Amino acid sequence: MPATPPSVVAPADAGSLPGKRVTLGADVPMRLDSGAELGPFVVAYQTYGTLNADKSNAIYICHALTGDHFVADRHPITGKPGWWEMLVGPGRPVDTDRYFVICSNVIGGCLGSSGPTDIDPATGQPYGLNFPILTIGDMVRAQKLLVEHLGIDKLFCVIGGSMGGMQTLQWAVAYPESVFAAIPIATAARHSAQNIAFHEVGRQAIMADPDWRNGQYLVEGTRPERGLAVARMAAHITYLSEPALHRKFGRNLQDRKAVTYGFDADFQVESYLRYQGAAFVERFDANSYLYITRAMDYFDLAADAGGSLANAFRPGGKTTPVRFCLVSFSSDWLFPTSESRAIVHALNSVAGNVSFVEINTDKGHDAFLLDEPEFHQVIHGFLEGCAEHRGLTVRRRGR
Amino acid sequence: MPATPPSVVAPADAGSLPGKRVTLGADVPMRLDSGAELGPFVVAYQTYGTLNADKSNAIYICHALTGDHFVADRHPITGKPGWWEMLVGPGRPVDTDRYFVICSNVIGGCLGSSGPTDIDPATGQPYGLNFPILTIGDMVRAQKLLVEHLGIDKLFCVIGGSMGGMQTLQWAVAYPESVFAAIPIATAARHSAQNIAFHEVGRQAIMADPDWRNGQYLVEGTRPERGLAVARMAAHITYLSEPALHRKFGRNLQDRKAVTYGFDADFQVESYLRYQGAAFVERFDANSYLYITRAMDYFDLAADAGGSLANAFRPGGKTTPVRFCLVSFSSDWLFPTSESRAIVHALNSVAGNVSFVEINTDKGHDAFLLDEPEFHQVIHGFLEGCAEHRGLTVRRRGR
Repeated sequence: MPATPPSVVAPADAGSLPGKRVTLGADVPMRLDSGAELGPFVVAYQTYGTLNADKSNAIYICHALTGDHFVADRHPITGKPGWWEMLVGPGRPVDTDRYFVICSNVIGGCLGSSGPTDIDPATGQPYGLNFPILTIGDMVRAQKLLVEHLGIDKLFCVIGGSMGGMQTLQWAVAYPESVFAAIPIATAARHSAQNIAFHEVGRQAIMADPDWRNGQYLVEGTRPERGLAVARMAAHITYLSEPALHRKFGRNLQDRKAVTYGFDADFQVESYLRYQGAAFVERFDANSYLYITRAMDYFDLAADAGGSLANAFRPGGKTTPVRFCLVSFSSDWLFPTSESRAIVHALNSVAGNVSFVEINTDKGHDAFLLDEPEFHQVIHGFLEGCAEHRGLTVRRRGR
Repeated sequence: MPATPPSVVAPADAGSLPGKRVTLGADVPMRLDSGAELGPFVVAYQTYGTLNADKSNAIYICHALTGDHFVADRHPITGKPGWWEMLVGPGRPVDTDRYFVICSNVIGGCLGSSGPTDIDPATGQPYGLNFPILTIGDMVRAQKLLVEHLGIDKLFCVIGGSMGGMQTLQWAVAYPESVFAAIPIATAARHSAQNIAFHEVGRQAIMADPDWRNGQYLVEGTRPERGLAVARMAAHITYLSEPALHRKFGRNLQDRKAVTYGFDADFQVESYLRYQGAAFVERFDANSYLYITRAMDYFDLAADAGGSLANAFRPGGKTTPVRFCLVSFSSDWLFPTSESRAIVHALNSVAGNVSFVEINTDKGHDAFLLDEPEFHQVIHGFLEGCAEHRGLTVRRRGR
């Protein structure tokens, strides 16, 4: 791969995207969990706030499956506000007047970081399925290199929801001395059979689309839009709770007083799902979707620690020094509270430093992206407490 | 449509199927809820046991979305045992030594009853999407014609799970004087937003398959197998509970000791889902899947009764005479217990005759098809009680 790979085309021309980019693994390629090597590779990232003199105020935010590094500024393709603007910004729970916030596009992604849409230097063509398979561990390994590149020895905190929560856990387990605190939200220590099953449906929907062309659609000038839309529709149902769908849509009809006795979108929920599918293919790459879902499927902290989750939090026989705050949402059936509780129990069993809050909401898994004041208060409060322990001086604008 | 429509080809040549067939609606076509008319049309059905002299021992069994009338004999395509052999047969809870059991393939289906695979007499080609859209009411209307054809005024009982439960409810509401007892199992009085959403994903998966050819695949000699398989995979997840998937598969790997870092079916649950999809397309028609899911989406007993479910059970201001026994399964998240409870509450509010049992099981929605002894005892006990009230004489072989 060239030093600055001409990161390719659909759906976003990475070179023209806002935000920061760094090439890593140029001297020594990064060894992946699969045994393959990756390097040089690009990590696209964004930062907010100012790193303090002793570099102790850095917070790493890890994004979810289809997220990106535009946490608190406008999405370059959709034009929508940053996906966590409610949580991250001046005076917000993750206060950018006080903390230096970093977020990077995961490797394997499609918004600037190296992934299957990049040109494979071996062929001069987009990688497609020749891009190496990644794990959550690999994603975090790349993030660690970025953090080192930024000259930061120890992150004040790592925060993430869903797959971002997996990365947060991975950070704490792989680099316990480099993380002061961790907030894994709406996540799990391993992907469940049901969640693997839903991912497999999405992958099969993509691969069933003849325009997928065995992953070589960029070369062949097609895009598996129908398959990717179906994958998104199936996934989207899992992000919402049944009560939320009922409250939002119920059996309401779309622009009509009666059913039409046909296969058009009679019900609002159908129209909504179709829109979600159509909007998604505008901003996301099908192969990236395959790679990232696969990384989530492979995630299993306990398996990596010899079958015991507790052991994952006792590296070298010594309890992890990381302070944890776990958050789950009562109506989240994709990453239910029981998954967070399993992590809490493992941490308790090694006398780890952990707090845990289940937020009562009917918004399902998506709640971590939505206006949930109690959730935001929990984040604020936990960070305040950690800042005090860490001895972070308060530095606010105009105060 | 000709009197004996040359019911078409894929996936099953109806003419060569075992079981009984009757042509209905030949003199007067059946008026559908959409306003369209259907007739003459064929209903394929199967019976077990013997109708008694006063024709008072008939039990109608209604099948689910992808079910058929081969309740208690071998499936003509798959060669598998009847789908409810555990429940229906000599000495079984639905005792064919005692009761006359009828089950028909729903209209719109693809195992002998008229549906979108039939030849449209107007064009001489398979209907495809020109087949009229159906409702659960239409399916039951056709069943009522079959029952009249068999000379039966009043069914002793109607039984069905899932979509079969919807039909059971529809029977009781539409023909309260023709049904002595009803056992709606794992069902609901209306399809929920989440369930409509899952159906829509399945339909979109089918319609996204280029081989679907806008529904005209039989004419064009293709079959949307990939789309139909994806639809089945997505649906199949909803039939199982998360605990059942975890117990059955967990994160077990398929024939391997380690992950392969690829997109093959590494996990057993992936392999299982792929198999479910592949097996399904061997026995089911894609357009039938569209039509039948749509009928379920449209089902809403309360809406049909002016917005009040209670009113559905008080035809003409008089409480329904039908005796109900509702059954739900604790881990069923597709048709959760709350849906059955809503029906029980409506029946209670009109002083209806209703009993209700929630079976404790981790098997999810599929439990109604599986070996659940307590469930089977409930069916047996309720039927015994009803038989006594109905004054059915016991008639057992060799006793």
